[in-house]
Amino acid sequence: MTGHIRPPGNIYSRRLSITKESFRKRGVEGFLVTDIHNVRYLSGFSGSSGFLFITRKENIFATDFRYKEQSEKEVEGWEILIEKGDGVKLIKSLCQKNDIKKLGIESSVSYIFFNKLCKTGLYVHPFEGLIEKFRETKDVSEITAIKEAIRRAENAFIEVKPYIRAGAREISIALRLEEKLKKKRCRHIPFDIIVASGTNSAMPHAKPTEKKLSPGDLVIIDWGGEADGYFSDMTRTLLMKGDNLNKKKEIYQIVLEANKSAISKIKPKTKSPEIDSYAREVINKAGYGNFFGHGTGHGVGLQVHEAPRITWNKREIIRENMVFTIEPGIYIPGLGGVRIEDIVAVRQEKCEVLTSLPKNLEVI
Amino acid sequence: MTGHIRPPGNIYSRRLSITKESFRKRGVEGFLVTDIHNVRYLSGFSGSSGFLFITRKENIFATDFRYKEQSEKEVEGWEILIEKGDGVKLIKSLCQKNDIKKLGIESSVSYIFFNKLCKTGLYVHPFEGLIEKFRETKDVSEITAIKEAIRRAENAFIEVKPYIRAGAREISIALRLEEKLKKKRCRHIPFDIIVASGTNSAMPHAKPTEKKLSPGDLVIIDWGGEADGYFSDMTRTLLMKGDNLNKKKEIYQIVLEANKSAISKIKPKTKSPEIDSYAREVINKAGYGNFFGHGTGHGVGLQVHEAPRITWNKREIIRENMVFTIEPGIYIPGLGGVRIEDIVAVRQEKCEVLTSLPKNLEVI
Repeated sequence: MTGHIRPPGNIYSRRLSITKESFRKRGVEGFLVTDIHNVRYLSGFSGSSGFLFITRKENIFATDFRYKEQSEKEVEGWEILIEKGDGVKLIKSLCQKNDIKKLGIESSVSYIFFNKLCKTGLYVHPFEGLIEKFRETKDVSEITAIKEAIRRAENAFIEVKPYIRAGAREISIALRLEEKLKKKRCRHIPFDIIVASGTNSAMPHAKPTEKKLSPGDLVIIDWGGEADGYFSDMTRTLLMKGDNLNKKKEIYQIVLEANKSAISKIKPKTKSPEIDSYAREVINKAGYGNFFGHGTGHGVGLQVHEAPRITWNKREIIRENMVFTIEPGIYIPGLGGVRIEDIVAVRQEKCEVLTSLPKNLEVI
Repeated sequence: MTGHIRPPGNIYSRRLSITKESFRKRGVEGFLVTDIHNVRYLSGFSGSSGFLFITRKENIFATDFRYKEQSEKEVEGWEILIEKGDGVKLIKSLCQKNDIKKLGIESSVSYIFFNKLCKTGLYVHPFEGLIEKFRETKDVSEITAIKEAIRRAENAFIEVKPYIRAGAREISIALRLEEKLKKKRCRHIPFDIIVASGTNSAMPHAKPTEKKLSPGDLVIIDWGGEADGYFSDMTRTLLMKGDNLNKKKEIYQIVLEANKSAISKIKPKTKSPEIDSYAREVINKAGYGNFFGHGTGHGVGLQVHEAPRITWNKREIIRENMVFTIEPGIYIPGLGGVRIEDIVAVRQEKCEVLTSLPKNLEVI
């Protein structure tokens, strides 16, 4: 399919062997992959409906009629089955045919699907985050795609920047940015773009409104791009010229310091809550701890929010080639908010910041 | 929030009382709503993260820090709790506080979440599609929103139509259509727009490519709009002038007849597979049964695909005020495809077709 850069086939075979090795070690004879992002990661299928049934010897990709031709183009080295209506029946018959007594499944399946599988008499064993764990560290083709997603997002922002001025409406800026992203061949916009100004910027997940940018407004812009299925995610905050800017400038500098402090500490073997605390302590010490309620970052890849989470209550060991955001913020109701978000890739002794737009305070 | 037309509060209270009555009858003292569309349906919250904890006396809405301000604006008549990190703990403590011994949950929760709830010692009982069932029939405010979503989608199409001509690329038409939808205030595009021409149109879920529209191409365009959280979904197929159009014209007429035949039979108390068979028989009789592999339709509302399904292997009784698509198709590899999709609302003795763009064959 035009525009779809296929990584070399051996990437998929490598991912598949690691998966097989992993479930074999766990004592299951077959494994069912239902999470659509994991399906894509292992098979290359970019549609929205399909599952994988993997045994030591067999690699089966099942989808429905609608994706017949697309899967034939995208999925190499898998036997393609077109299921008609009842996936559970098909899974049962595949287990019988392949003599699978214990089938591994992903614990992200719905309870109802799990229950239906059990009712067929199959012995199923749910595993949590098995393939998500592999996806935490990115290979070269994945980092290339993420870099391209960032490049598209940053270029779109640069083109829209002249329109970010007093009098422009939040919603118009968001629409213009989205249009530019689409023109730069982002097939999917990873999330609703946030353009939040003035008191709206105190809502970390504000929706763009008809509000016009006004003097003295803090303006948070949080947006992402896409390339070959991989996403980017970043935030910049601008300040509109006006009176009484001191407190706004102050919180900007604190958030910037928190962002830099966390980034400077990222390297393999660090624990994720430590990174969170490097950002959080800067904000706590400045007396704004109560105004930073969310985690410091999250992995980015085939999903815009994926493992690892960089937060206080989820512990993960940072590994080389993990890619995640660092996005501390301070949000003060009635005044406004600041968030500065970058994407980093973990390298041997430190991290590489993949996002490149300047982050010193800009008063426009 | 600007642009968000709130239905009168009593709609939410009515939905909530029906829900309470329903789980009370099933012998559970509290009910947990985790599906985000069901959360919106019952509370009006339009964000992407939150759950409802409902007992006979209490209505609790829980979300995280990011949605604090938004929920205070959108959610009326609910106690708002901001959870920090661990939803399962919060649910457990709410059950203890409210003396809930048996908690109803939605069977759409993930297996892992179900398992975590069980591990806390709670006795949970999953129910399948309880609120989805209420959502199948739409009230006046919902049908108004769907009509508006259709109006936006149809107007966007009319504006883009002059650009649908030989030489135009599929992807450019799709981007232009999306841009128009956004300009018409569709906040969310319900699915990736399909513009599939020539042999690409034989894939029911084709992605737009760089291919240019050429003489003799069948061109399937499948797109949807949005208004106030409700979606629309429709398809039209055009034929480009060219040679040897007879077979293409023939399958067009068959699909059109199938579409009309199904629509003419829709009224309350019909069974959904019957409607499917009215469309399917027309296609079968014409000898193209093997080229129509998908169901005839699906409900549309807060989700673009929801209950009821209009297909051969899922039986539902049609009720007044259900809103769903009718979209038969014929897809012939190497030649091309035709799909004609409308949205209907079921009325007392028949149905009302909500989509209004002409569907007689247009050769352009």
